[in-house]
Amino acid sequence: MATSEASVTRIMVAVNESTIKGYPHASISSKGAFEWTLQKIVMSNTSGFKLLFLHVQVPDEDGFDDMDSIYASPEDFKSLKSRDRARGVRLLEFFVTRCHEIGVACEAWIKKGDPKEVICHEVKRIQPDLLVLGSRGLGPFQRVFVGTVSEFCVKHAECPVVTIKRRLDETPQDPVDD
Amino acid sequence: MATSEASVTRIMVAVNESTIKGYPHASISSKGAFEWTLQKIVMSNTSGFKLLFLHVQVPDEDGFDDMDSIYASPEDFKSLKSRDRARGVRLLEFFVTRCHEIGVACEAWIKKGDPKEVICHEVKRIQPDLLVLGSRGLGPFQRVFVGTVSEFCVKHAECPVVTIKRRLDETPQDPVDD
Repeated sequence: MATSEASVTRIMVAVNESTIKGYPHASISSKGAFEWTLQKIVMSNTSGFKLLFLHVQVPDEDGFDDMDSIYASPEDFKSLKSRDRARGVRLLEFFVTRCHEIGVACEAWIKKGDPKEVICHEVKRIQPDLLVLGSRGLGPFQRVFVGTVSEFCVKHAECPVVTIKRRLDETPQDPVDD
Repeated sequence: MATSEASVTRIMVAVNESTIKGYPHASISSKGAFEWTLQKIVMSNTSGFKLLFLHVQVPDEDGFDDMDSIYASPEDFKSLKSRDRARGVRLLEFFVTRCHEIGVACEAWIKKGDPKEVICHEVKRIQPDLLVLGSRGLGPFQRVFVGTVSEFCVKHAECPVVTIKRRLDETPQDPVDD
């Protein structure tokens, strides 16, 4: 059944990199949220949905990740910036490729900043029908230290939000890992 | 495309009566949550979903609703109980009829108790893929007095939960009304 653009449901999925494997690997919770959306919502109705992948990169203020690098000229910083961007692009490639294989329309983009703030800002700008967020499903004790993006977005995002917790068999030894 | 029972997505929708119009009318937020589910999720894929309507009736402890009634025998209480039930059934009829017209499979049932506790208990028992809740979208000041079922369920229900706020043009003068 053909679906006109007006009746397509636009689902924003916020995705981030794995804390265990690093870039370009997606986090367990991002992949879980994506797979849930495909299996439980989109299913065979591939023309009824458009997925919008937002990846928010946290600015690396202290540069700890790059302690082995030597910065001798402004160009060095520029290449660093473009390397960050390239990593983000490769992360998004995973999701876009998967959508392309299945035949679901999608868009993907990168923003810099505090993930929870940027996600809510992009929701306001893009106005999706639904925001899907992966969550580590941390207990109250762990949440005090790491904060949770999903809790903030459930309260503040200006669209319906659904949070997908990781399956028990996918939860790493240290649940703060992802 | 035929969908096997295993791949049907089961969406629980908790529904309640209107505080303005009373039984058998559904609340604005219940109807909003239902319509959102049909328009944004189910769409043309009617065979891909099954909707599960849960209506929780709050026991009328003080009997204020029935001040004009006279209870002279145990049978009077029995008839009161059956009248409550009949009202709940008529509320559910609205949703079931609508599903039948569209061709979406559904089930509906009534429970008594504290809505937030019962909803979470039924989620545990039924294990839906998604719980959809209407919400009045009250501000923090109003929430202190009326509490919100949706906030509790977002935290405690053992399945993904999405909360649908009423549209601005559907919000009554007093937002506590529904």
